[in-house]
Amino acid sequence: MIEEKYRVLAEAAIESVPGIKRTGIRVLDLRERYLKILMPLEGNINHVGMMYAGSLFTLGELPGGVIIMVSYEPGKFVPIVKEVGIRFRRPALTDVTLELEWTKEHADKIEAEALEKGKADFTLDMELKDAGGEAVALVNGIWQIRPMPQGMANPFK
Amino acid sequence: MIEEKYRVLAEAAIESVPGIKRTGIRVLDLRERYLKILMPLEGNINHVGMMYAGSLFTLGELPGGVIIMVSYEPGKFVPIVKEVGIRFRRPALTDVTLELEWTKEHADKIEAEALEKGKADFTLDMELKDAGGEAVALVNGIWQIRPMPQGMANPFK
Repeated sequence: MIEEKYRVLAEAAIESVPGIKRTGIRVLDLRERYLKILMPLEGNINHVGMMYAGSLFTLGELPGGVIIMVSYEPGKFVPIVKEVGIRFRRPALTDVTLELEWTKEHADKIEAEALEKGKADFTLDMELKDAGGEAVALVNGIWQIRPMPQGMANPFK
Repeated sequence: MIEEKYRVLAEAAIESVPGIKRTGIRVLDLRERYLKILMPLEGNINHVGMMYAGSLFTLGELPGGVIIMVSYEPGKFVPIVKEVGIRFRRPALTDVTLELEWTKEHADKIEAEALEKGKADFTLDMELKDAGGEAVALVNGIWQIRPMPQGMANPFK
């Protein structure tokens, strides 16, 4: 379920980037410091019928921005992706989902550093799971948040 | 320039995977053990007007299969992607290109291992460059080739 106050954010995160929207990715659940997203197999297969590596990447990269949207006041921070690694463990032959949840303590720690230093890196380690609950790919990456510059339009508002 | 004998391969590599085709990626040059590909900025921007991380990933992942197509007899080996890491160095505000070339010695070494052991891993380290020649992202990854199983249809033929 998408919490009502995040409904517009959920749409904007997908609609504002054609390369994300084209995949048909869907936000299943969104609430404070929590997200669950799904990449459909349909429209995302490769030449041998399993999910295309790039579509799995899209599923694994999106959380870096979305977790910021649902952890802080809208427009408080700008997320930037610095690096992402993806390991493919087995063929993905069904829709694939990804869940991510932060504790309040974790979010507060990153926020404090960003406010003090003007930026804060954060890492994510996530499993992408098929319909049977098996991890088809592992994503780890480094993102960064910075306080939204004064006068900069919030692209997600 | 795409060497005539690789024209069908170049089309198949893109046309057979909707998630690749949707990006508008283009093969600029293709000859024995060499490729140059381009990701257009148009259709691949993110919410702040630079190239979307996932489109850069697509550009960086495609060479793992294409280099195999142009280094060995058609259908001799099946390429598999094992893991890919991408580091984003600066915003990509133009079309982005990637070139990759193998020496005959390097291709022969991988082939010999694949034939002897039934599989061979290979790594790629590549720069994704903007129109000014600046590296906007660095991709490194591990792929594997295996001899095409007997009776398996070659998806790229």
